[in-house]
Amino acid sequence: MGKKIFGVDLGGTTVKLGLFNEEGVVEEKWEIPTRKEDQGAHILPDIAESILKKMEEKGLSKESDVAGVGIGVPGPVDEKGIIHKAANLGWGEFSVSEELAVLLGGIPVVAGNDANVAALGEMWMGGGRGCENIVAVTLGTGVGGGIIVAGKVVSGASGAGGEIGHIHIEDDETESCGCGNCGCLEQYASATGISRLAKRRLEKDDKPSILRERSISAKAVWDAVKEGDELAIEVARQFGSYLGKGLAAVAAVVNPEVFVIGGGVSKAGEILFDYIRDEYKKYVFHGSREARFVLATLGNDAGIYGAARLVLS
Amino acid sequence: MGKKIFGVDLGGTTVKLGLFNEEGVVEEKWEIPTRKEDQGAHILPDIAESILKKMEEKGLSKESDVAGVGIGVPGPVDEKGIIHKAANLGWGEFSVSEELAVLLGGIPVVAGNDANVAALGEMWMGGGRGCENIVAVTLGTGVGGGIIVAGKVVSGASGAGGEIGHIHIEDDETESCGCGNCGCLEQYASATGISRLAKRRLEKDDKPSILRERSISAKAVWDAVKEGDELAIEVARQFGSYLGKGLAAVAAVVNPEVFVIGGGVSKAGEILFDYIRDEYKKYVFHGSREARFVLATLGNDAGIYGAARLVLS
Repeated sequence: MGKKIFGVDLGGTTVKLGLFNEEGVVEEKWEIPTRKEDQGAHILPDIAESILKKMEEKGLSKESDVAGVGIGVPGPVDEKGIIHKAANLGWGEFSVSEELAVLLGGIPVVAGNDANVAALGEMWMGGGRGCENIVAVTLGTGVGGGIIVAGKVVSGASGAGGEIGHIHIEDDETESCGCGNCGCLEQYASATGISRLAKRRLEKDDKPSILRERSISAKAVWDAVKEGDELAIEVARQFGSYLGKGLAAVAAVVNPEVFVIGGGVSKAGEILFDYIRDEYKKYVFHGSREARFVLATLGNDAGIYGAARLVLS
Repeated sequence: MGKKIFGVDLGGTTVKLGLFNEEGVVEEKWEIPTRKEDQGAHILPDIAESILKKMEEKGLSKESDVAGVGIGVPGPVDEKGIIHKAANLGWGEFSVSEELAVLLGGIPVVAGNDANVAALGEMWMGGGRGCENIVAVTLGTGVGGGIIVAGKVVSGASGAGGEIGHIHIEDDETESCGCGNCGCLEQYASATGISRLAKRRLEKDDKPSILRERSISAKAVWDAVKEGDELAIEVARQFGSYLGKGLAAVAAVVNPEVFVIGGGVSKAGEILFDYIRDEYKKYVFHGSREARFVLATLGNDAGIYGAARLVLS
């Protein structure tokens, strides 16, 4: 019997935890609240306590039964496991992996950025299974990315690897992105971005659309696309053009085998790819033309899977 | 005394070879012609013969004195050392590393794409020395790139990693790039691209410029910039805007510590950075704003250095 691994996905309101075997099968999943008071001082002790309790419950000894603990955190983490800042947890710069390892009595801990870690999860047991070079794209409130090269997460020099939502894609934009720049991919391809494109299109003229009777959201746009609404289809084309162009730039850098598309927007399903794929092919270098597009399959569990996989990297 | 390493840089007309120690000191450098006849069938045997002769001359035994041979080849090479095509050598798809290893009587061989390998050389002993996350940018006839993440070359799924010259950067371009697409970075930031920008600018109106009396080349443009020529400075600004924007996209993906700029255009010197840096900062995600720009220092030797370094990866 192989050793067990704990995968921890530290979010702003809850911490998800999973107990895995080395083959990637999750044997148990649970959650604890993220206590953010006192500059987040309770977070790691709470996690350690929960893991140690689970080990006791399962009769697992730290010496012979546990290979390690992986943790994904919401902020930039460099290759040495140093988090550079996680504003929404109240954390400054310190070594998450070292601190948690001490709290766990010396069990090895590996830390990574949550988006990168989720990408690793999708590579291991999700949409990118069987591939070693993947780009995971999370189309949610923002656009996140996780770059996996030769089976390893690309953290970058200061933990800002995979920030593909902030590729500059539109020179004519006048509104600012959350990052302070103008014309970032995230301003067009996130859920918020899609709503924005739809609102702008609706304001442009009086073209009829079922969207005029609905409250605008990314979901409403994709539902309308599926119903054949012409205006919604125009919006979907704009979305696809921006995202296809952005992912073509990503491919020119890392030449992935597959793009794994997740996040709330991906619930629209494979219809997304009808709008992304041709635009991608139009802009991409021929050596990367064959990259596939697949949907993420692990949903909210990608983080615990990837965190567990970190231990095996 | 440590072992020796051979670094081989296979070019279209000559093969450069170097004998290194494991600290990166080159002890001897020499060249042989690249015989391209018979679909390039003589190339690897010629290289093997030259290496074996050098070993005999130096009294090096393959069992105890040679750590391995690294080779950079002009075509896409995947992580398993398979070259996918090198049209200008007449080569199809085969394992360069395995074939050369057999010819060398079993000395371990590692192969990589030449641009990626040169990047590794600059990381090891050149402009990126001391860094593990670098992007090498070659501004020559085209724009090449070599991406190094955590000390390793990013080859990509099919050897097309680092093709940053083919990031789409200009929607309004009507002329085609060599790759078949329109609006690639290479069309503006290569030596050819700079000449093209200058010609277009000269044709636009009658603004006086010393470039009107000279034959147009990238060197002529940078010379004119140094002489304070206003029109040349306009061209340099265009160049810088395209390249800054392109490198900002690269940084959003891999977050390098340093950009190492080489190739013929880089002979203009650090003045290039005056035009690239501010544009880069304008478009880049804040987490990558601190990336440095340095000049490549190994020139034409980057290939043999990097090839030798492959053996240590």
